Amino acid sequence: MSKQEGLQNKKENFIEWYIELIQKAELADYSKVRGFNVIRPYAYEIWERLTKILDSKIKEKGVKNAYFPLLIPESLLKKEATHLEGFSPETAWVTEAGSSKLDERLAIRPTSETIMYDLYSKWIRSWRDLPLKLNQWVNVVRWEKTDPKVFLRGREFLWQEGHTAFATKEEAEKEVRDIVNMYKEVLEEYCALPVTVGIKSPKETFAGAEYTRVTELVMPDGKTIQGPDCHHLGQKFSTMFDITFLDKDGEKKYVWQNSWGFTTRVLGIMFGIHGDDKGLILPPKIAPIQVVIVPIFTEKDKPAVLKEADELKIRLEEDGIRTYIDSREDKKPGWKFNYWELKGVPIRVEIGTKDLANDEYTVVRRDTLEKIKVSRKDAIDRIIKLFDVIHNNMYQRAKELMESKTKRVDNYEDFKKYVNGNRILTCWCGNRKCEDEIKEETGARVSCIPDEQEIFCNCVKCGEPAKYSVYFAKVY
Amino acid sequence: MSKQEGLQNKKENFIEWYIELIQKAELADYSKVRGFNVIRPYAYEIWERLTKILDSKIKEKGVKNAYFPLLIPESLLKKEATHLEGFSPETAWVTEAGSSKLDERLAIRPTSETIMYDLYSKWIRSWRDLPLKLNQWVNVVRWEKTDPKVFLRGREFLWQEGHTAFATKEEAEKEVRDIVNMYKEVLEEYCALPVTVGIKSPKETFAGAEYTRVTELVMPDGKTIQGPDCHHLGQKFSTMFDITFLDKDGEKKYVWQNSWGFTTRVLGIMFGIHGDDKGLILPPKIAPIQVVIVPIFTEKDKPAVLKEADELKIRLEEDGIRTYIDSREDKKPGWKFNYWELKGVPIRVEIGTKDLANDEYTVVRRDTLEKIKVSRKDAIDRIIKLFDVIHNNMYQRAKELMESKTKRVDNYEDFKKYVNGNRILTCWCGNRKCEDEIKEETGARVSCIPDEQEIFCNCVKCGEPAKYSVYFAKVY
Repeated sequence: MSKQEGLQNKKENFIEWYIELIQKAELADYSKVRGFNVIRPYAYEIWERLTKILDSKIKEKGVKNAYFPLLIPESLLKKEATHLEGFSPETAWVTEAGSSKLDERLAIRPTSETIMYDLYSKWIRSWRDLPLKLNQWVNVVRWEKTDPKVFLRGREFLWQEGHTAFATKEEAEKEVRDIVNMYKEVLEEYCALPVTVGIKSPKETFAGAEYTRVTELVMPDGKTIQGPDCHHLGQKFSTMFDITFLDKDGEKKYVWQNSWGFTTRVLGIMFGIHGDDKGLILPPKIAPIQVVIVPIFTEKDKPAVLKEADELKIRLEEDGIRTYIDSREDKKPGWKFNYWELKGVPIRVEIGTKDLANDEYTVVRRDTLEKIKVSRKDAIDRIIKLFDVIHNNMYQRAKELMESKTKRVDNYEDFKKYVNGNRILTCWCGNRKCEDEIKEETGARVSCIPDEQEIFCNCVKCGEPAKYSVYFAKVY
Repeated sequence: MSKQEGLQNKKENFIEWYIELIQKAELADYSKVRGFNVIRPYAYEIWERLTKILDSKIKEKGVKNAYFPLLIPESLLKKEATHLEGFSPETAWVTEAGSSKLDERLAIRPTSETIMYDLYSKWIRSWRDLPLKLNQWVNVVRWEKTDPKVFLRGREFLWQEGHTAFATKEEAEKEVRDIVNMYKEVLEEYCALPVTVGIKSPKETFAGAEYTRVTELVMPDGKTIQGPDCHHLGQKFSTMFDITFLDKDGEKKYVWQNSWGFTTRVLGIMFGIHGDDKGLILPPKIAPIQVVIVPIFTEKDKPAVLKEADELKIRLEEDGIRTYIDSREDKKPGWKFNYWELKGVPIRVEIGTKDLANDEYTVVRRDTLEKIKVSRKDAIDRIIKLFDVIHNNMYQRAKELMESKTKRVDNYEDFKKYVNGNRILTCWCGNRKCEDEIKEETGARVSCIPDEQEIFCNCVKCGEPAKYSVYFAKVY
């Protein structure tokens, strides 16, 4: 980045601001194939931190990692009809290898239910083999027709996909709640992102699932975006793939299954929700650099200031804080402030001649841009405490955004009035007809039927008694 | 695994033994597409341990991780002619997405030089941007015509691919040596695998490279297999992809590049070299389970024996040792011994009534099957020391295997006599003609021109003065 200009105005044009942020902060770049993006090192490092956290939580649940092939024969993908119907419009097909045409088309995995369950049927024989809980960290391809948006909706993304098989429906359904709670915890405690938890309407449910339990987030433009989710597959796949086990009672039974995933989309959500017109704002727990030290010196006091910077870095690193000193001599301090604000580093420490003389540092919070004088002695403690303050403030701000972008309405006039730029909380009879009509007339979908139910009006569309309170929204 | 039978005889038929081992020890399984295999949890966990070790060494070198797209447009793959020629016979092509034909065929990456360097040309502007050192951990597809062998030669495999760009040839060439040393260290210190280090003949060099520096290993049947390698690309790609930088002297120059990779093939090499007719033998440092405790009890002393097993497990885990107690009641001790020998766990501890009375354990080494009585008090120390002893013994055995399977010959009669079942060390004039004729007449290739050079005869084929001492072998 040779020159710095401000970003677009986030409030006025969220998506243009977002696209520009991703480029300028060097988070991602485009390849020559539309919808296929490069995750650059700065964003990838955040992904690595998230995967490490999530992977250890997944392993604590007794799930083991494995790797299943990238390519799925068409005949296998066809086995579960709803599943095929859902995914075939967006499947990338390999039809040639070297100079030969293949006998059968091979799908690049859009998700791995079919290829995994084909083997589950071989591996599972008795109740002793259950539960079988596997996970893989892989890339998937979904050739979506809608306009790709880097991280938020790409044609290739990275994810973990967990696939579990149980002897009973009860165990499987318990896991659905556990998994979504785990996702919620990672989003809240590491990404400072508040979520709504609930289930999808049947229309919006994962192709082949009995129901889909999701985390939902609200973007700054009032559109919602589905976060990590868990699908209860019931016995749909086990019936089609003949995954049976001999139970303790001597009977042959079909297993009960779930699948669940957490994707690189989370990065885009986090960048989009937290950032401001100066750039990224990264949650301290997963920021690649947590503290950037900018030494400010004249030629005369350069050695003393740089020595002080080094010493502070050593002290911070002793406490496990990821620290970087920007000692570039061809850039002015003001340029560096802008640069690290664009990069979203949670805390900047400025060390100048005057700070040195006063035995203190100037600490600047990225989330509020507030400047704080901190004594040399207390610096480490203060910075560690500030991380929590920043995290909580970021979470609180995101929560207020979510609340301010959620409008509660009990009539269709208000629905139409607020639906552009907001998530709508209202009540719904549960019929597909109303859902379809609303989609057609306003562009909004049922984004989530939240766990917290409060029926406060009749169906917003047909006026019949409502079955659910529900969120409608335009979605990413 | 419901029933245990012995494996094939490794000495008599290595490859059948190997294929059976992979299945029985539940390391991998087949998918419906030939050459595309599932890496099962037990093998995947070893891969995870290896990647963690290697990833931290890579990061210590200042290399950053990133992610580049899976699909490469044909026009991009075509930019470097030798590279295309090398890879196009084994490229899987995506030609359709959903119900549409694509305008241009997209290759599933067989390796990522072209897609990465297309962006390097955009990112690199000045000497300040150098060196650029990126790495990615991904899957690749190479639709090889030769018979796929699980892990050793698959049509899809996992790897890391590092891609670096430097201002000078010297820096790039220094890195080539550093990287191969790093690979050698991981193979020797963690996998207990001795390697030969050298370069490939021009004929066997990576498509598009100036030279390829490799680690080479010898399999139990005397065939060689190429281990992790590093390609010095010189300026071949930078010229074609226009990757230039403005140097300190104000001149525009092309960068010097390397690429280097470490693949899941290493798992197969390790399983194949160390295993015996009872199953796997895993190096202690990367074994998923390092110690398995088998309690042996009658109904009467069951509580005391199980309590003792639990206590030992806690003591071992306090020292970071990965421990598992096999307390299954539906299996007899003898069955368990066989099972864990098949799984290659480095140390088995048997705890029976008599051991309890004597305040000792029976410790069994997997590598030698030797039984050792160890006092309760010294158990942890003894076991930790045994890990080193086992590792060193495994390394030594593998080294002896390599030496015994390497025949030094100075004439073509002996060459032909020994080439089946051995690696041949001999001398070569360096001409492609001799290399081709030897390949045609014996099936052996130049597998490696080793660093350690000793010209002890004329060219084994044409009798002219030799340029190199060299290994010829049939290769995996």
